[in-house]
Amino acid sequence: MDLMAEKEPILSSFLYASILAHDCLEQALAFVLANRLQNPTLLATQLMDIFSNVMMHDRDIQRSIRLDVQAFIDRDPACLSYSSALLYLKGYHSLQSYRVAHALWKQGRNVLALALQSRISEVFGVDIHPAAKIGDGILLDHGTGVVIGETAVVGNRVSLMHGVTLGGTGKETGDRHPKVGDLALLGACVTILGNIKIGEGAMIAAGSLVLKHVPPQSMVAGTPAQVIGSIDEQDPSLTMNHDATKEFFKHLAVSFRDGRSK
Amino acid sequence: MDLMAEKEPILSSFLYASILAHDCLEQALAFVLANRLQNPTLLATQLMDIFSNVMMHDRDIQRSIRLDVQAFIDRDPACLSYSSALLYLKGYHSLQSYRVAHALWKQGRNVLALALQSRISEVFGVDIHPAAKIGDGILLDHGTGVVIGETAVVGNRVSLMHGVTLGGTGKETGDRHPKVGDLALLGACVTILGNIKIGEGAMIAAGSLVLKHVPPQSMVAGTPAQVIGSIDEQDPSLTMNHDATKEFFKHLAVSFRDGRSK
Amino acid sequence: MDLMAEKEPILSSFLYASILAHDCLEQALAFVLANRLQNPTLLATQLMDIFSNVMMHDRDIQRSIRLDVQAFIDRDPACLSYSSALLYLKGYHSLQSYRVAHALWKQGRNVLALALQSRISEVFGVDIHPAAKIGDGILLDHGTGVVIGETAVVGNRVSLMHGVTLGGTGKETGDRHPKVGDLALLGACVTILGNIKIGEGAMIAAGSLVLKHVPPQSMVAGTPAQVIGSIDEQDPSLTMNHDATKEFFKHLAVSFRDGRSK
Amino acid sequence: MDLMAEKEPILSSFLYASILAHDCLEQALAFVLANRLQNPTLLATQLMDIFSNVMMHDRDIQRSIRLDVQAFIDRDPACLSYSSALLYLKGYHSLQSYRVAHALWKQGRNVLALALQSRISEVFGVDIHPAAKIGDGILLDHGTGVVIGETAVVGNRVSLMHGVTLGGTGKETGDRHPKVGDLALLGACVTILGNIKIGEGAMIAAGSLVLKHVPPQSMVAGTPAQVIGSIDEQDPSLTMNHDATKEFFKHLAVSFRDGRSK
Amino acid sequence: MDLMAEKEPILSSFLYASILAHDCLEQALAFVLANRLQNPTLLATQLMDIFSNVMMHDRDIQRSIRLDVQAFIDRDPACLSYSSALLYLKGYHSLQSYRVAHALWKQGRNVLALALQSRISEVFGVDIHPAAKIGDGILLDHGTGVVIGETAVVGNRVSLMHGVTLGGTGKETGDRHPKVGDLALLGACVTILGNIKIGEGAMIAAGSLVLKHVPPQSMVAGTPAQVIGSIDEQDPSLTMNHDATKEFFKHLAVSFRDGRSK
Amino acid sequence: MDLMAEKEPILSSFLYASILAHDCLEQALAFVLANRLQNPTLLATQLMDIFSNVMMHDRDIQRSIRLDVQAFIDRDPACLSYSSALLYLKGYHSLQSYRVAHALWKQGRNVLALALQSRISEVFGVDIHPAAKIGDGILLDHGTGVVIGETAVVGNRVSLMHGVTLGGTGKETGDRHPKVGDLALLGACVTILGNIKIGEGAMIAAGSLVLKHVPPQSMVAGTPAQVIGSIDEQDPSLTMNHDATKEFFKHLAVSFRDGRSK
Repeated sequence: MDLMAEKEPILSSFLYASILAHDCLEQALAFVLANRLQNPTLLATQLMDIFSNVMMHDRDIQRSIRLDVQAFIDRDPACLSYSSALLYLKGYHSLQSYRVAHALWKQGRNVLALALQSRISEVFGVDIHPAAKIGDGILLDHGTGVVIGETAVVGNRVSLMHGVTLGGTGKETGDRHPKVGDLALLGACVTILGNIKIGEGAMIAAGSLVLKHVPPQSMVAGTPAQVIGSIDEQDPSLTMNHDATKEFFKHLAVSFRDGRSK
Repeated sequence: MDLMAEKEPILSSFLYASILAHDCLEQALAFVLANRLQNPTLLATQLMDIFSNVMMHDRDIQRSIRLDVQAFIDRDPACLSYSSALLYLKGYHSLQSYRVAHALWKQGRNVLALALQSRISEVFGVDIHPAAKIGDGILLDHGTGVVIGETAVVGNRVSLMHGVTLGGTGKETGDRHPKVGDLALLGACVTILGNIKIGEGAMIAAGSLVLKHVPPQSMVAGTPAQVIGSIDEQDPSLTMNHDATKEFFKHLAVSFRDGRSK
Repeated sequence: MDLMAEKEPILSSFLYASILAHDCLEQALAFVLANRLQNPTLLATQLMDIFSNVMMHDRDIQRSIRLDVQAFIDRDPACLSYSSALLYLKGYHSLQSYRVAHALWKQGRNVLALALQSRISEVFGVDIHPAAKIGDGILLDHGTGVVIGETAVVGNRVSLMHGVTLGGTGKETGDRHPKVGDLALLGACVTILGNIKIGEGAMIAAGSLVLKHVPPQSMVAGTPAQVIGSIDEQDPSLTMNHDATKEFFKHLAVSFRDGRSK
Repeated sequence: MDLMAEKEPILSSFLYASILAHDCLEQALAFVLANRLQNPTLLATQLMDIFSNVMMHDRDIQRSIRLDVQAFIDRDPACLSYSSALLYLKGYHSLQSYRVAHALWKQGRNVLALALQSRISEVFGVDIHPAAKIGDGILLDHGTGVVIGETAVVGNRVSLMHGVTLGGTGKETGDRHPKVGDLALLGACVTILGNIKIGEGAMIAAGSLVLKHVPPQSMVAGTPAQVIGSIDEQDPSLTMNHDATKEFFKHLAVSFRDGRSK
Repeated sequence: MDLMAEKEPILSSFLYASILAHDCLEQALAFVLANRLQNPTLLATQLMDIFSNVMMHDRDIQRSIRLDVQAFIDRDPACLSYSSALLYLKGYHSLQSYRVAHALWKQGRNVLALALQSRISEVFGVDIHPAAKIGDGILLDHGTGVVIGETAVVGNRVSLMHGVTLGGTGKETGDRHPKVGDLALLGACVTILGNIKIGEGAMIAAGSLVLKHVPPQSMVAGTPAQVIGSIDEQDPSLTMNHDATKEFFKHLAVSFRDGRSK
Repeated sequence: MDLMAEKEPILSSFLYASILAHDCLEQALAFVLANRLQNPTLLATQLMDIFSNVMMHDRDIQRSIRLDVQAFIDRDPACLSYSSALLYLKGYHSLQSYRVAHALWKQGRNVLALALQSRISEVFGVDIHPAAKIGDGILLDHGTGVVIGETAVVGNRVSLMHGVTLGGTGKETGDRHPKVGDLALLGACVTILGNIKIGEGAMIAAGSLVLKHVPPQSMVAGTPAQVIGSIDEQDPSLTMNHDATKEFFKHLAVSFRDGRSK
């Protein structure tokens, strides 16, 4: 941080004000998010108060914001430091803003939660209903175009690329959105519709349209998506999953082509 | 409204100023949109004047903004009240902002119409050319990533999910964009290219790429999209179409898988 | 310009300040971009200084911003004048902002380059890593949802529609993103993943998922994408490519359907 | 106006938006004042609504804003046109803003009236209690430092230079501020304290401290102020008063010096 | 407060956010001042952090902000409630902002203290050097034009009207500004120059120029000021002083006139 | 500067951006003033362009801004460095902003010059007509309340305290404001009215009202002002004048009192 500030004086005050001036990650994050989300009808100072109050008193969020930043460090090769995630990553910012909106929703402050959802969607292009439930250790990369519906559930250590949709399939107001298991990897522009299960550790190839349940540890691809393989590891750790990604995609390409040439 | 304001004092003034302080929906909407679209080169007060003038004197827009808000109430299960559509739904806001740009375009004020298009695209991530023609009773859900070209035509009571493209196919400047019939449903991330017809009441599955005409009352899916079924109702009402959505997608998934397993 | 200003007095000062008040394209562009990208932590005046300094001293950027604007005039039928590209096209603005971030990255000012990337992604919904290399004469149409990774390379006179992803396939930090040859055309919502080559003059149909090398002058489509034809011209010029686009897409639709019906 | 806009393109849009775009003086003034008084807790759009509503329905204000602008034209030699008063004169702006606050006060909207007083004092350095009563045809020149208390009354066609105080003399809450008659001229930095009468057509020399009643048509000066002469005209018209100003001051200087040399 | 909010919905959110949303006066004041003093180079969020940190840890300021608000209630008849002082009184706001700047100055943060002085002078028209020492229970009424120099000292329970100057008399850098005793009353536009003493409980008439020491309990007036009477009370309490004000001024006017007529 | 930045990281970016990032004083000043004077109808970037263009091409202003900053260093004991004048002194900022408005007025750009005057008066509380002529080496201390009329002329190395008025005396539009000779010192809240001469090196005591010519090297005081002494030095240098200030005021007090006791 000090090194960053020294190297780029134009940003040094912002870096200082965002990070070094605060005692804890919660205050720093409240400062950064308030400045990104403010507009004429939501003052930065009001937002900083709201975010700070929620984050200083909610143990779940305190754990989540730490596990999420670690997810970026571990899984996004372009993310080189904790401070760059905190300061600049739109995916991380939209996720933590949703977490505050979700906490407000649970407190019954629905109007404010929906106002935040609206503003998050405008600023980051990420539209997550505040009633959706999202676990810890999430990588939400780039973020643009992500849509997650009201009754969606996302497990722990899931990775979501940009353009992912967890949508409903119609007009009913009940439980109508996907349930994504721990450790799943949802590629760019994946669309998952309806109250279906994505099993633990499943991998959904980029651009897939998923309309039915996906077994744990399976690889699926296509529109509509089909199972094209499985992951052999008995106990696929998070890291391994990600090391395997490239292989997965090569495999996927081959499977698909071969499958069709039959 | 009063209840909302009472429950969330942080937002009560905005709720009041947006809705209760105005005599009519047009003024309220002009107020809300002006505050969302303002930037250093388009003052909120100028925008409020422009929006108010257009909406107070254009019967078509007055009808459209009412039928559109009803479409959100009827078809978006997460939209619980008229006021929440008016205040917070990005899809509704981008659609009404386009309607003003379109009215200006028809008056020959092309420069201002294009300036608005540019700003709407920046703020909402929705890029609709002001010359495009869009009917009434439209549900534009979430909105992020929607692109609608200059010569596109969209009928009445159409639903468009986020990520829908109604694009051209090349360099010519003539009539080159899709014509979408009444009551059609375009799923998330559907791409429709060229001067082709989407028949009345057609359903396009999420993620489809459509490059040729689609018959009325048919269901299509895939990249490129193929007809996978039809809708039996003699007189499919708007509501029924939407109630049928879930069935449709289940059907779709089955059709596709079976079709390929042959 | 004078005509535009005369017709629309509400915008005349902005048109004047943006274009006529400046001696050269570089200053005009610095003015326009600074006003679009400013926020509470990046003053418009600071940004104008930074952009102006980079663009006034970098021959490469001076050439690029001219060839790019020409690309919009030549290839985007909705772009009617140089000034409308300069003033209002989000794709053009995000591309030139990236060029400044890239120049700063090459000077070793990584922190500022990443801050700009973050802000460009927020304002325009276009996320280009400042280390990526992009040639001249680029058409980046609409822009929303575009993601281009750290080690991606894009040649000259390439056209990229909205929603294009040039992504990586895993966790490694080395060379992991696509290399796109000159004159290629990447349709809307195309996803290209991994360190693969897209040959010169290749055409990728909208919505395709590309996971392996694509030969020069070939047409590919589908998820995952397959070669569905080739471009016959011995010396396909840029203009011809684009004139051929419509034919290509018709051809594509036919090939695909026939291929599958076998 | 058109000429002004033509000559200075940087301001042409503001001139247009402020004046030519509006049907009536009331709307134009509401636009100008809303943009000057806005801050993060009082949106420009809210202020424009409030100002417009008050001014469109209050005949007294409609007359006052016209007679006041005429006063600037007639009596301020540096004010060359109606539009320059409307656009740029701080004294005129602070006076009309007070008039709106006064109207709100009379409607019983004391909280909003006091909020406006506070903001007017911050922006213009002019602190007028909304309960004070001020007549028509007022010239409030420059304005900085003017303070007018709660129970002060100012007649018609009065001129107040900058730095004038119409203050109270203690703690009581009753009627405790000056009553200034029609046609009086209060020079720069004049301080008048207590519930005393300044007679019609009286002239108070710059820098005077006035603590007791001043007879009509008299000239007073000094700290504390004493009568130093009278105005002979049987029927001193407004214009004549002002033509006499220079003479008055010469006379004043002589009187004073002579008075003291005794 | 609740009553105020109920009566004026346009301001209710601001009233809520400013007062009811905070646990203590310090936080409320930090919120209000941050929003008034913010500008493009001093973010509202930074200012709220700075003000909050200083006020939450400085017992002296905590006492001062309470005694000062009481002074407004006790001595300014136009100040009807604690909340109106907190929300809207420029004199109170500029005084408390100075107190923070003074605390920063004592901590050795001179650069930030001077930056605040500069901003306070711009926003409120009140220019107090952060090194000046000012006691508790101060009424700074209206505020516009007040200037207080680097080595000035002001005792407790002093009242300063607008336009008061406590200035130096030349170029030396040592102790060169006035020392004002407890309970003194400085009328509007009083100028006191040089390192001189204003005795306890002295009253300086509006518009006076004071260039030499003023004895305790004396009344002075004129340019330059002379003693024109004394205050008989053995133990003049603060309240009585102020009740006596009107009498004082009447007396003053008589004394002066008579003194001169000799 | 570097030291300042190091000590106060919250301000370091502003200090850097304001001073170190620019090649010359003109650019630095254009940056600082543009950020202070910006509002919704005058963009910071436009102002920076305007100020920079004027200052980079006007030799007179280039000399003035240097001689003026030296005047603050030499004569204002609270001004400790060049950078603090440049960054924070309202008097210096309002003076340099006037200089740009004056240059524009001379170029015939009257509309823009008056717009700047209006904005300078709002932001700084300093109202100087752009047609007024002001020499070099001016100390304008604090600034609040200063008013200088259209035909006023101020010589070189003059010092003006806050609250100084150089006003007219009536309605005529001709040459009607004071002419102040070189090296004069105008104390706080001095009011000078009419087309009269203030001789070289004259000293006007604080709070004086001056209505007739003042001889060179004389001391005047009172309302109306009378000569109370002279300055003996054959060749009073600027520095000596200021060293003599304190003595002057002591002398003044004595003279006055004695004069009256006769």
